[in-house]
Amino acid sequence: MIKVGIVGGTGYTGVELLRLLALHPQVDLQVITSRADAGTLVSQMFPSLRGFVDLPFSHPDQANLSQCDLVFFATPNGIAMQQTRELLDAGVKVIDLAADFRLQDIGVWEKWYGMTHACADLVAEAVYGLPEVNRAQIKTARLVANPGCYPTAVQLGFIPLLEAGVIDASSLIADAKSGVSGAGRKAEIGALFAESADSFKAYGVAGHRHLPEIKQGLARVKSSEVGLTFVPHLTPLIRGIHATLYGKLNRDVDLQALFEARYKDEAFVDVMPAGSHPETRSVRGSNKCRIAVHRPQGGDSVVVLSVIDNLVKGAAGQAVQNMNIMFGYAENTALNLVPLLP
Amino acid sequence: MIKVGIVGGTGYTGVELLRLLALHPQVDLQVITSRADAGTLVSQMFPSLRGFVDLPFSHPDQANLSQCDLVFFATPNGIAMQQTRELLDAGVKVIDLAADFRLQDIGVWEKWYGMTHACADLVAEAVYGLPEVNRAQIKTARLVANPGCYPTAVQLGFIPLLEAGVIDASSLIADAKSGVSGAGRKAEIGALFAESADSFKAYGVAGHRHLPEIKQGLARVKSSEVGLTFVPHLTPLIRGIHATLYGKLNRDVDLQALFEARYKDEAFVDVMPAGSHPETRSVRGSNKCRIAVHRPQGGDSVVVLSVIDNLVKGAAGQAVQNMNIMFGYAENTALNLVPLLP
Amino acid sequence: MIKVGIVGGTGYTGVELLRLLALHPQVDLQVITSRADAGTLVSQMFPSLRGFVDLPFSHPDQANLSQCDLVFFATPNGIAMQQTRELLDAGVKVIDLAADFRLQDIGVWEKWYGMTHACADLVAEAVYGLPEVNRAQIKTARLVANPGCYPTAVQLGFIPLLEAGVIDASSLIADAKSGVSGAGRKAEIGALFAESADSFKAYGVAGHRHLPEIKQGLARVKSSEVGLTFVPHLTPLIRGIHATLYGKLNRDVDLQALFEARYKDEAFVDVMPAGSHPETRSVRGSNKCRIAVHRPQGGDSVVVLSVIDNLVKGAAGQAVQNMNIMFGYAENTALNLVPLLP
Amino acid sequence: MIKVGIVGGTGYTGVELLRLLALHPQVDLQVITSRADAGTLVSQMFPSLRGFVDLPFSHPDQANLSQCDLVFFATPNGIAMQQTRELLDAGVKVIDLAADFRLQDIGVWEKWYGMTHACADLVAEAVYGLPEVNRAQIKTARLVANPGCYPTAVQLGFIPLLEAGVIDASSLIADAKSGVSGAGRKAEIGALFAESADSFKAYGVAGHRHLPEIKQGLARVKSSEVGLTFVPHLTPLIRGIHATLYGKLNRDVDLQALFEARYKDEAFVDVMPAGSHPETRSVRGSNKCRIAVHRPQGGDSVVVLSVIDNLVKGAAGQAVQNMNIMFGYAENTALNLVPLLP
Repeated sequence: MIKVGIVGGTGYTGVELLRLLALHPQVDLQVITSRADAGTLVSQMFPSLRGFVDLPFSHPDQANLSQCDLVFFATPNGIAMQQTRELLDAGVKVIDLAADFRLQDIGVWEKWYGMTHACADLVAEAVYGLPEVNRAQIKTARLVANPGCYPTAVQLGFIPLLEAGVIDASSLIADAKSGVSGAGRKAEIGALFAESADSFKAYGVAGHRHLPEIKQGLARVKSSEVGLTFVPHLTPLIRGIHATLYGKLNRDVDLQALFEARYKDEAFVDVMPAGSHPETRSVRGSNKCRIAVHRPQGGDSVVVLSVIDNLVKGAAGQAVQNMNIMFGYAENTALNLVPLLP
Repeated sequence: MIKVGIVGGTGYTGVELLRLLALHPQVDLQVITSRADAGTLVSQMFPSLRGFVDLPFSHPDQANLSQCDLVFFATPNGIAMQQTRELLDAGVKVIDLAADFRLQDIGVWEKWYGMTHACADLVAEAVYGLPEVNRAQIKTARLVANPGCYPTAVQLGFIPLLEAGVIDASSLIADAKSGVSGAGRKAEIGALFAESADSFKAYGVAGHRHLPEIKQGLARVKSSEVGLTFVPHLTPLIRGIHATLYGKLNRDVDLQALFEARYKDEAFVDVMPAGSHPETRSVRGSNKCRIAVHRPQGGDSVVVLSVIDNLVKGAAGQAVQNMNIMFGYAENTALNLVPLLP
Repeated sequence: MIKVGIVGGTGYTGVELLRLLALHPQVDLQVITSRADAGTLVSQMFPSLRGFVDLPFSHPDQANLSQCDLVFFATPNGIAMQQTRELLDAGVKVIDLAADFRLQDIGVWEKWYGMTHACADLVAEAVYGLPEVNRAQIKTARLVANPGCYPTAVQLGFIPLLEAGVIDASSLIADAKSGVSGAGRKAEIGALFAESADSFKAYGVAGHRHLPEIKQGLARVKSSEVGLTFVPHLTPLIRGIHATLYGKLNRDVDLQALFEARYKDEAFVDVMPAGSHPETRSVRGSNKCRIAVHRPQGGDSVVVLSVIDNLVKGAAGQAVQNMNIMFGYAENTALNLVPLLP
Repeated sequence: MIKVGIVGGTGYTGVELLRLLALHPQVDLQVITSRADAGTLVSQMFPSLRGFVDLPFSHPDQANLSQCDLVFFATPNGIAMQQTRELLDAGVKVIDLAADFRLQDIGVWEKWYGMTHACADLVAEAVYGLPEVNRAQIKTARLVANPGCYPTAVQLGFIPLLEAGVIDASSLIADAKSGVSGAGRKAEIGALFAESADSFKAYGVAGHRHLPEIKQGLARVKSSEVGLTFVPHLTPLIRGIHATLYGKLNRDVDLQALFEARYKDEAFVDVMPAGSHPETRSVRGSNKCRIAVHRPQGGDSVVVLSVIDNLVKGAAGQAVQNMNIMFGYAENTALNLVPLLP
């Protein structure tokens, strides 16, 4: 049993963490902070948690986080880096669901996030929390940078191809579609129902913060730079990411076998049968990534379809998976979730 | 551990039963039938069940249901009544999620369902599976008629008022709204996305099959006939029923206290704080019914808001709750589900 | 040809006015104001208007509204009352799409809107712009209070019954459902896609600002107070209001004939054939109100189903209809719109 | 004034044709056929047309189509080719909204559509009705093959690049997303609300019928074969197609100027300002195609975003545009439509 705290519990990754942790047999939820809503019962803001979470939101200044074994940051970018050193010094492990520790190159981070980084040395220590790549390091990490939602779906789809060296790494294309919860629980015109329902659009074509994160992750796998065109889109789903990935094959290969072999021991990556078209709803509410790989008309193009629930495998679920690994629990504890369909 | 079979597993109540039973520690799922899809893996039709359900659909004629301890019928109306006697005779308990055993008056049933009933005597034996009213009888029942979705939401909202005798029972109004999954997984024009998205309509104002079921249930509670106007509506949700109930108070009463007292021992009925407006999403994927009671401007009108997930408390979840009661398991076994929000 | 100005053009009623006026052959659109977005091209904010509206938003302080023949206020409540006197004095006619001039009882208005009214005398002069009731007065009005969305749908549904005196006016019930655009184009958490999609809820059961407006309108028709329970709901539509109205008949009457007779000369009220269930999408983008009237099981309850597009007949379309009447144009000029279905 | 008939008026392209033609000043709608619904009023099936279309559906065998000046086929594939010769012989012009006359290579057509073609010679005569490419031929055509929805969006996006020869034509990628109305008004499980709402998926990755149509169109423009990977997706919109197109630049070029020059005289193609991300709703209900062109991070990748309403520019609107051209009417007659936003 570990004592767990959550900083920033009023957003979608926060409430999703609560949904998952509420039924985790090894977690004693100690504190959930919110500056704006301190004093309010968590279950008043999120009635879905009535009967599961009895805590009120605590003011960050009054929350005794250093007594926790683990603190999750479900905060906007730039918060975790202010508080992580103190927590680590107090012996508390940290999982940041935001982007503060994701990019190893501080200069790149500062350019894309428009802030000066508060603790460059900790970035070097942080482990990128994609278990399918970094499980061993996560096991012993004090500080885990939980991956972004798009980066999770895109990397899991490209990794088998890049590790095997069967595609041209200089001209990858990731056409990704996200549900609106990916924009967070923030009062913004663009995320209104009447703005985003029954419509579809691309955004950030000129450049999106997840581009350098994906490129960093793929370059590690490939041990060299990759060329990537990344176009995110907003689609009228609540939850779900669908990444459609394009690459050019440089030699003949059994793609289905390649993907199955790569993920055969992974509980949360499901390689679908040949010819499949995974739907986002097939992972709704679960920590699964489902992948299908295609070679249209037998040509030299490979098309990978990769779906996740952006709030689970793309955020809170992966964070719990990382926690399970860090504390030696079975990796699927509290994550053995049947997706909600329909 | 009991052996369980499902007849008719390709509809929404079927797949929802599978979602719930897959994680039930006392259930050994033996067989799932489908005439049209015999031989197909269940998880091929519903990829959300990959890794949870390994069975194929069996042809009804080959399925050895009599070896089960319990059989669920998740079939269209008129099927269960053909097969129930044989199963009961073989010592198998039966829960029918369709309407075959819901109405005690065979004449009324035959009028609304347009068929001749195949086993009137079994109707007399059948217990109406609304645990908040009939828990004791369910415990010893061989045959349970699982309530309809609208009837569950409407009855749970009116019951405290009728039992206490504080409203005029001759002029009840139930204005109910259902998500589209309530229409079932049938290929019908009216349930197409392009027909039912971004639109709202009433239907069946002249008469809906759930009207006599609700009236029967309320009359039992009241021990006399009730007058009810019931208007169902279709709303662009996947899951969810919202019943807005109207009554005329015949005396002053503390409505909030009345509701809280009635349901204080019920695990699956949550009386919200005074002034609340429950959202359907606050019960999405869970077996809860959430209720709020209002008295607008302190007048003599009472307004009850009652929400359920039509596929869970309105169908499969309530069926599992009934199963738990019938077999002596803790009532919330496999039903301790945190609603999926957002 | 008249010169028209719009104050507050960045909300949904504003952009809808622009959609309609852009093709009005008698309207010369002079100015559209927005304090926050002055200088921005209207078509940059609303690309749907590219090629139809070439104006930029003007700062309210620079906008020469007094040169207009007519000014529409598509502003939040409390703005129009500050500026109307000056415009009227300059000979400009005014249509307020907000609520400033809707309630004749200033005390009631101030209670529900939480402000001191700035020009009580003008309220007395203002004509309530429901053409099906007040066409003659609108014709000669200088100042028109455009009705609210719910009040339009509810009044048009109850009017034939109240005028004919066939229902008990002391216990009316209006169960109304609105699409999310009714909340306006404001950055609010509750109107986010991820909050309001795939969910349904009531709100304002204790009291909604449209309640006194509806009661005032119905009382005028009835020439006496009415008793009304009004429960609004939020449903995941972009556009559309569906009002389900309940009354108790006090004598036998041919309801279908009654409604058809009442509206036989009305271009924008369509009484559907007996037994119909109008869908909100059947009026999407149009100025129609479609109504069906039912008497379930031949009892003494009457159920009226009334649908409008909240942004058209419930706001901008009705405003244009009023403008046409005020300036002597054919009432359906620029309003001869085929609803967009699907 | 011309006499117009529609064969197959009960699908979405049929009802959309009716919406557009109802207000066309030069069209006298004579007959609308439907085998299954003969005798039913069109406005009974589609109440949105009440007051605009008074005709009943006629049985195909009783419909005197040869008296028309023009007949639209809004039928499933394989119907128009059975009836076109007789109509042409009678002097009637024909626009087929299905695929019977789209592919010049009969062998390719028969392979993808799984039928023997009934009139190969007429295929040779048929003009592909993409006005932005074939306006001159359409003007004098007797028989027009109205383009598919995806092909319209994809071709309009690639054409400027291919005509200018600035991209590698051997490795084009079209990642396209369609609303569910693209599946037609057919009772199919996959198009149910509860199946397709709140979910996103690719389909037909192995091969889609629009692939050869797009390749044929692009090859004509390029005067040589093109290599294309085409992945269609289903997204929970009613209407709308968003095509995201990827190409590799082979030389430096002012992309914005290139696109603006190509379409400067086209009423229905709107090249958005540099940096734009067109939304599908910005063309909802209108005949516009809006296009934006990007060069992410100044690299050698070009990304084109192209949106249409699949039922208008992707079907019925383009058919009316073709009709206008064929009969010498102003090209935007009855098509001067402001998109419905929100």
